[in-house]
Amino acid sequence: MSRIIIINGPNLNLLGVREKGIYGAERFEDYFERLKTQYNGVELSYFQSNHEGAIIDKIHEVGFSADGIVLNAGAFTHTSLAIADAIAAVTTPVVEVHISNVYAREPFRHHSYLAKNCKGVICGFGLEGYRLAVASLLRE
Amino acid sequence: MSRIIIINGPNLNLLGVREKGIYGAERFEDYFERLKTQYNGVELSYFQSNHEGAIIDKIHEVGFSADGIVLNAGAFTHTSLAIADAIAAVTTPVVEVHISNVYAREPFRHHSYLAKNCKGVICGFGLEGYRLAVASLLRE
Amino acid sequence: MSRIIIINGPNLNLLGVREKGIYGAERFEDYFERLKTQYNGVELSYFQSNHEGAIIDKIHEVGFSADGIVLNAGAFTHTSLAIADAIAAVTTPVVEVHISNVYAREPFRHHSYLAKNCKGVICGFGLEGYRLAVASLLRE
Amino acid sequence: MSRIIIINGPNLNLLGVREKGIYGAERFEDYFERLKTQYNGVELSYFQSNHEGAIIDKIHEVGFSADGIVLNAGAFTHTSLAIADAIAAVTTPVVEVHISNVYAREPFRHHSYLAKNCKGVICGFGLEGYRLAVASLLRE
Amino acid sequence: MSRIIIINGPNLNLLGVREKGIYGAERFEDYFERLKTQYNGVELSYFQSNHEGAIIDKIHEVGFSADGIVLNAGAFTHTSLAIADAIAAVTTPVVEVHISNVYAREPFRHHSYLAKNCKGVICGFGLEGYRLAVASLLRE
Amino acid sequence: MSRIIIINGPNLNLLGVREKGIYGAERFEDYFERLKTQYNGVELSYFQSNHEGAIIDKIHEVGFSADGIVLNAGAFTHTSLAIADAIAAVTTPVVEVHISNVYAREPFRHHSYLAKNCKGVICGFGLEGYRLAVASLLRE
Amino acid sequence: MSRIIIINGPNLNLLGVREKGIYGAERFEDYFERLKTQYNGVELSYFQSNHEGAIIDKIHEVGFSADGIVLNAGAFTHTSLAIADAIAAVTTPVVEVHISNVYAREPFRHHSYLAKNCKGVICGFGLEGYRLAVASLLRE
Amino acid sequence: MSRIIIINGPNLNLLGVREKGIYGAERFEDYFERLKTQYNGVELSYFQSNHEGAIIDKIHEVGFSADGIVLNAGAFTHTSLAIADAIAAVTTPVVEVHISNVYAREPFRHHSYLAKNCKGVICGFGLEGYRLAVASLLRE
Amino acid sequence: MSRIIIINGPNLNLLGVREKGIYGAERFEDYFERLKTQYNGVELSYFQSNHEGAIIDKIHEVGFSADGIVLNAGAFTHTSLAIADAIAAVTTPVVEVHISNVYAREPFRHHSYLAKNCKGVICGFGLEGYRLAVASLLRE
Amino acid sequence: MSRIIIINGPNLNLLGVREKGIYGAERFEDYFERLKTQYNGVELSYFQSNHEGAIIDKIHEVGFSADGIVLNAGAFTHTSLAIADAIAAVTTPVVEVHISNVYAREPFRHHSYLAKNCKGVICGFGLEGYRLAVASLLRE
Amino acid sequence: MSRIIIINGPNLNLLGVREKGIYGAERFEDYFERLKTQYNGVELSYFQSNHEGAIIDKIHEVGFSADGIVLNAGAFTHTSLAIADAIAAVTTPVVEVHISNVYAREPFRHHSYLAKNCKGVICGFGLEGYRLAVASLLRE
Amino acid sequence: MSRIIIINGPNLNLLGVREKGIYGAERFEDYFERLKTQYNGVELSYFQSNHEGAIIDKIHEVGFSADGIVLNAGAFTHTSLAIADAIAAVTTPVVEVHISNVYAREPFRHHSYLAKNCKGVICGFGLEGYRLAVASLLRE
Repeated sequence: MSRIIIINGPNLNLLGVREKGIYGAERFEDYFERLKTQYNGVELSYFQSNHEGAIIDKIHEVGFSADGIVLNAGAFTHTSLAIADAIAAVTTPVVEVHISNVYAREPFRHHSYLAKNCKGVICGFGLEGYRLAVASLLRE
Repeated sequence: MSRIIIINGPNLNLLGVREKGIYGAERFEDYFERLKTQYNGVELSYFQSNHEGAIIDKIHEVGFSADGIVLNAGAFTHTSLAIADAIAAVTTPVVEVHISNVYAREPFRHHSYLAKNCKGVICGFGLEGYRLAVASLLRE
Repeated sequence: MSRIIIINGPNLNLLGVREKGIYGAERFEDYFERLKTQYNGVELSYFQSNHEGAIIDKIHEVGFSADGIVLNAGAFTHTSLAIADAIAAVTTPVVEVHISNVYAREPFRHHSYLAKNCKGVICGFGLEGYRLAVASLLRE
Repeated sequence: MSRIIIINGPNLNLLGVREKGIYGAERFEDYFERLKTQYNGVELSYFQSNHEGAIIDKIHEVGFSADGIVLNAGAFTHTSLAIADAIAAVTTPVVEVHISNVYAREPFRHHSYLAKNCKGVICGFGLEGYRLAVASLLRE
Repeated sequence: MSRIIIINGPNLNLLGVREKGIYGAERFEDYFERLKTQYNGVELSYFQSNHEGAIIDKIHEVGFSADGIVLNAGAFTHTSLAIADAIAAVTTPVVEVHISNVYAREPFRHHSYLAKNCKGVICGFGLEGYRLAVASLLRE
Repeated sequence: MSRIIIINGPNLNLLGVREKGIYGAERFEDYFERLKTQYNGVELSYFQSNHEGAIIDKIHEVGFSADGIVLNAGAFTHTSLAIADAIAAVTTPVVEVHISNVYAREPFRHHSYLAKNCKGVICGFGLEGYRLAVASLLRE
Repeated sequence: MSRIIIINGPNLNLLGVREKGIYGAERFEDYFERLKTQYNGVELSYFQSNHEGAIIDKIHEVGFSADGIVLNAGAFTHTSLAIADAIAAVTTPVVEVHISNVYAREPFRHHSYLAKNCKGVICGFGLEGYRLAVASLLRE
Repeated sequence: MSRIIIINGPNLNLLGVREKGIYGAERFEDYFERLKTQYNGVELSYFQSNHEGAIIDKIHEVGFSADGIVLNAGAFTHTSLAIADAIAAVTTPVVEVHISNVYAREPFRHHSYLAKNCKGVICGFGLEGYRLAVASLLRE
Repeated sequence: MSRIIIINGPNLNLLGVREKGIYGAERFEDYFERLKTQYNGVELSYFQSNHEGAIIDKIHEVGFSADGIVLNAGAFTHTSLAIADAIAAVTTPVVEVHISNVYAREPFRHHSYLAKNCKGVICGFGLEGYRLAVASLLRE
Repeated sequence: MSRIIIINGPNLNLLGVREKGIYGAERFEDYFERLKTQYNGVELSYFQSNHEGAIIDKIHEVGFSADGIVLNAGAFTHTSLAIADAIAAVTTPVVEVHISNVYAREPFRHHSYLAKNCKGVICGFGLEGYRLAVASLLRE
Repeated sequence: MSRIIIINGPNLNLLGVREKGIYGAERFEDYFERLKTQYNGVELSYFQSNHEGAIIDKIHEVGFSADGIVLNAGAFTHTSLAIADAIAAVTTPVVEVHISNVYAREPFRHHSYLAKNCKGVICGFGLEGYRLAVASLLRE
Repeated sequence: MSRIIIINGPNLNLLGVREKGIYGAERFEDYFERLKTQYNGVELSYFQSNHEGAIIDKIHEVGFSADGIVLNAGAFTHTSLAIADAIAAVTTPVVEVHISNVYAREPFRHHSYLAKNCKGVICGFGLEGYRLAVASLLRE
C-alpha cells in the first residue's frame, strides 16, 4: 500500500476562507476527504504549517520512507533555499503543486527555488492539481 | 464527445530517436496510440510541426471549436510571443506540457512566454505528462 | 501610380473576431476595402501571414519595386531580428504600425527590433493607423 | 470648431537653426503657418518651452477644454514622470510626436515615460508628423 | 472600543539593549506602557517573535477581528513573501512601521515585500512611529 | 510658535479635481483650512508648484529658519536628484509624504531619491498623511 | 566520398545584391560553384531558406547521414533556440559560419544560441569562411 | 575557560546520512565528540535547528556571554537578513563556516548575507573547517 | 577679447554656506571676483539657477556667440537629457566641472548625461576646477 | 615571403601537459614544427607569455611589419582591454583563435574584448584552428 | 617533509607600512619568520609580486611539485581569469586567503574568480589567516 | 623644488604614431620636452609601460616621496583594481588624465576603477590635459 503525504505551506490553511477569486471556495480539509475516498487504496496524509522549519522537519521525517510527497510550499516556493535543499537531501520523490497559475500572477511568483529538485511541477488546475500530482506519483 | 488535440513543436518529431536520456525511448506515435486506447470516448488528434507559423495556424484552426489543446511547444515555449498571442486569442483552453523538468535544465528553459495565457502547466513527468494534461481537461 | 503594400503579421487574421476590446470589432478585409476606395489612385495590396519566413519572403519580393510597405508585424515586432534584417536589406521604405498603444501594454511589447530600420512608427490609433501610414508614404 | 494645441519641449525652439541633419532645415514657426493654412477650419495654437514646469502648467490649462494636444516633449519624453502624470490627469487626448526616428538613435531615446498615457505615438516623419497627429485627432 | 495589535519581528526584542545609535535607548516594553496610557480607550496588545511562522500565525489569528495591526516585521520586511501573502489574506488593515529611516541604510532595506499589501507605511520617526501608526488607524 | 510649511509638487494642484479614485475628492486648499484650524498654535503655510526649480528655491528660502517641512514632491520624488540635494543642504527637517500607497502602484513609484535625506516617510493615508507629518514634526 | 551541406538562413539569398559593404559583392551561387570546383572530391550541396522551420526540417533530414553541416543561420543565430535544439539532436557535426565579424556589429549579434551545440565557429572572413569551414570538416 | 558554541542550520542534521559526495560521510555528532576531546580545556556546545527563528533565538541567548560562535547557517546563509541582523546585534564574535566550497557550486550559494557581519569566513575544508574556526576564535 | 561664461546649476548658490566638508567654505561670488582679477583680459560672466529650463535658456542665449561655457550643472548632470541636448545644439565649447570628486561619492553621481557632448571634464579640484576649465578654454 | 607570428597567452605553455580533456594531448611546440613543415614557404614564428604586458609589447613590435598575427590570448581574451587597444593600434591583421569551443564552456568565456578589433575569429577546432587561421591570412 | 609556498599578490609588499587600519601593522616578512619558527618541520617559502604574469609563472613552477599553495592574490582575486586558469591547470591544492573580511568592504571585493578552483577560502582573520591556511593544508 | 612624475599606461607609447584621429599627431616625448621647458622650476619625470605590474611598482617607488603623480593608465583605467589599490596605498596625490573624452567613446571607457582613489580627473583636452594636471598639483 502506497504512502503519500500532502504538505501545504504558509497561508494555505485559509483556503476556502479568503481570496476565493484566486484559490477557490473549497476548504482543503473537505477536498482532502474527497481525495481520500477516491484513493482509498492509498495511505494519504496531510500536513500544513506556516513555519518554514516545520516543513523542513516534516520532509526529513517522511522523506526516506514515504512513496511520494505532494508539496505546495506557497510563498516559500519563491524564497526558501532551505526547503529546496531538504528536497534534494531526501529520497522520496516530490511533486510541486500550485493551485493558481503562478505564471499569470506577479513576476516574483514565476520563479521556484524548489522546482529543479522536484520530480515535476503541476500548476493552474485548482485543487484538482493535488489529484493530478497523486496520480502522477502512482502512475495509475 | 470531447475533442482534444495534442500539438507538439520543434524537434519533438525526433522523440524516441535521439537524446533518450532526456526525453525517453518511446516514439510519440506509439505513445499516442496507447493514449487513444485509454481514452476511447474522446476524439484525440495529434499535430507536430517545426514551423512556428504552422503551429499558430493550427491553434487558430481548432481554437474556437475543440474542447482542449495540449501544447508542448518545445523551444518555441521560450521564444515565441506570437504563439502566446495565438493562445490568448482563441477560446479553447490550452494546457502547457513539458516532458522533461525544464527547471532542472539550462536557465533559458525556465521561462515560458506561453504559460501565462494557458490554463495550467505540467512538466517533468515524461510522456505521462500528456495523459495528465488530457485528464485535467476532461476533469475525469 | 504609387504601389503600396500592407503586410500584417501573426494573429492579425483574427482582427474583428477576437479580443475586440484591444483591437476593435472591424475585420481587416472590410477596413481594407474602405481604404482602397479612399485611395483609388494608389495601387494598394494586402498580405497576411502567421509565418515569419513568409513575411521575409514577401518583403524581399516587393522591397525593391514597391513605393512603400506598411508593416504591422504583430508579435514578431518584438522577437524577429530576421525581419529587421530584411527591412534593412530592401530599398522600399517601411512604416511600422500598431493598432493598439503598445506602450500601455506588457513591457515586452515596448521594444521593437524593427523600428530602427523603418522610416517611422505609428501606434495607438486603431485601424486608422494604417491610413496615417499610407498618408505618410504618399506625403499627401 | 475644434481646438488643438501643439506643445514643443526643450531645444525645439532651435528647429531649423541647428542640427539640420537630424531635425531638418525648416523653422517650426514657418511650418506652423503652413499647417494653419491647411487646417483653416481648426483653431490651432502653439506653445514652446524649455521648462518642464511650464509644459505641465500648459497641459493643465488646456487639458480640460481643448480637443487635442500634440506633444513633442523632446528630451523630457525620456525623463519626466511629472509630465506623464499631467497627461494622465487631464481629459484632452494627447498624441506624442517625434520628428526623428528615436529608435534609430541612442538607447536612452527608445523609452518614453509619456507614451503609455497618450492616445498614440507618431515618430520618424519629420515635421510631417505634426500634421499626421492633427489628422489623427480630427479623424478626418 | 477599538482593538489594535502591535507586532514586532526579529531582533526587535533587543530594542533598547543593542545598537542604540540606530534604534534608540528605550526598551519597547517601556514605550508600550506609555502608549497604553496615552490611548487608554483602546485595547492595545503586543506580540514579538523571531519566527516568521509565528508572525503569520498571529496575523491569521487577529486579522479577521482586530481593528488594526501595526507591523514592524524587521528584516522579514525585505525577504518574506509569506508574510506579505498573510497580510493580503486577512481583512484587518495593516500599517507598516520602521523605527529607523530604512532609505538611509543599506540598499536591501529599501525594498519591502509587505508595503504593497498594507494600508500605508511610516518610517524614520523612532518609536514615535508606532504612535503615528495607531493614530492613523484610529483617525483621531 | 512653530513654523511648518507644506510643499506640494507637480500635479497636486489638481487634487480633488481629477483621479479621485487615487487621490480622493477633497481639494487641498479645503483640507489645509481644516488643518490650520486643528493646529491653531502653529504657523502653517502652504506652497505648490509644478516647477522643480521653484521647489528648490522654496526649500532654500525656508530651510534654514522653519521648524519643519512637509514635502510631497509628487513625481519629482522619483526623478529629482536636485531636490534631494536641496534637502541635504538645508537644516530644517523634512518629512516626505505621499497620499496614495506608492508601493501598490507602478514600480517606478517605489523608489524615492529624496527619502534618504529626509527625517522620515509617511505614505498611504490620504490627506491624513499631512496631519501625521505635522504631528511627527511637533512631536505632540 | 564525403557529403557536406551548406545551409544559409534568412536574407542570405540577397548576398551580392544588397548591403555589399557588409557582406561583399559576390552572389552565393557563384561562390558555391567555385567551391564545388575546388572540392571536386566532395559531395557539396546547398540549401537556403528564410523559414526557421524549413532549416530545422533540413537539419533533421541530413543530420544523421551527412558528414558535415556548414550553417550560417543569419539572424536566427541570435534568436532560435529551436535550431539550437535541432543541432543538439542530430549526429552530424555542425560548423557555424558568419560572413562578417559579428563582434564588430550590434551587441545583439554577439550572442549565438547555436554555438555551444556546434563543433566550432568561424566568423569575419567573408565567403572564405565557408571554405575554411569545409576544410575544418574534412581536416584536409 | 572559553565558551564556544557551534550552531548548524537547516538540513545539517542529515550530515553523514545523505549527499555524502558533497558533505562527507561522518555524522556531525561523532565529529563533535572528537572535537571536544581535542579542545578539552574549552567549553564547547552544539545546537542545530531547521528553524530560522530558533537560530536567532539561540544567537540572542548566547551572543552576549559566549566567547565565540561558529555558525554554519546552511541555506539561510543566502536568504536570511534576520540572522544577519542578529549577528550584528550581539557582541560575541561569529565565524561563518561552510563544509563544501560554496564558490564551486550554484551561483546563489556564492553570496552570503551574513559574512559582512561576521569576523571571518572559512569554507571548503569539510568538517575540518569547524576546527579551524574554533582555532581562529581561540587564537591558539 | 574672449568671452567666457560660468553656469552653475542647482544648490550651488549655497556654496560656502552649507556642506563645507564637501564643497569648501568659500562663497562662489568671492571666488569669482578673484578669478576675474586673475583673468582681467577675459570677459568673464556668471549665471546660477536652480531651474533646468533657465539653464537651457542661458545655454541657447550664449551658445552661439561666447567663446566658452564652464558648466557645473550640479545634480542635473546626472538626470538632464534636455541640458545634454542643449549642449549638443550650440556651437560654443562647453567644459563640465565638478567641485568634488564625484567618483568618490554615491554611484548615481558617477554618470554624466552631459559629458559626452562636452569638450572635456574636470572634477575633484574644488573651486580651482573652474580656473582650470577657463585655462583649458583659453589654451593659455 | 609572408611573415606570420603566432602569439599564445597565459597557461598555453602547459598545452599537452594538463587538462588534456579540454585542450588535447599535443604540446604546442610539436604542433608548431608540423605547421612550419606544412607552410615552408612562410616565415612562421611563435611567442608565448603569461604576461599581458609582454603580449602587448610583442604586438607593438611585429604589428607594423608582419603580414598576420594569430592570437590565442587565453583568459586575457575575456579581461584585457589593453590588448584589445593594442590590436586596434597596429596595422597587421589579427585572427583570434581558441582551441576549445568557448561557447560550450563557462559564461565568462563567451565574451571577447578582442574580437571586435580582429579580422575574424576561429574557435573549437583544437590545434587545427591555428592552421585555419594561417590559411585565412594567406588566403591560400 | 612538506613543501608549502605562500604567494602574495599586488600591493601586499606594503603590508605593515600602509593602511594599517585595514591590514594591520606587522610587516609580512616579520610574520613569515614567526610562521617558519612555528612550523619548523615544514619547508615554507614566500613569493610576492605585483605582476599577474609573475604569479602565473610561479604557480606553474611550483604547482606540480609543492604540497600546498597559500594564495592571497590581492586585487587580482577579483579580476584575473588567467590566475584562475593557472590554479585549475596545476595539481597542487591552493587555499585562498584574505587578511581583511572582504565581504565587509566594497562590493567588487565580494566576488572571487579564483575561489571555485581552490580547495577552500579563509578570510577576515588578519595575518592569522595564513597560519590557518597552512594548518588546513597540513591537516595537523 | 616640486617633484612630479607622469605615468602613462598601455599603448600610450604609440602616441603620435597611430590613431591620430583620436589621440593627436604629437609624440609624447616631444610634448614632454615642451612641458619641461614650461615648468623649468619643477622636477618633471616620465614613465611608460604596457605592464600593469610595472606601473604598480613605479607608484610604490615614487608614491611616498614625490609631490604628485599624473596618471594616464590607458585601458587599465577600466580594468585594474590592483592599480586602484596602489593609488589608495600611497600618500602622493594622483591626478587621472585622459587625452580623449572617454565619455564620448565606448561604454566600457566610461567607468574608471581608479578615479575614486585619485584627487581628481581631467579628460578630453588632448595632451593639454597633462599640463592642466601638473598645474592642478602645483596650484599655481
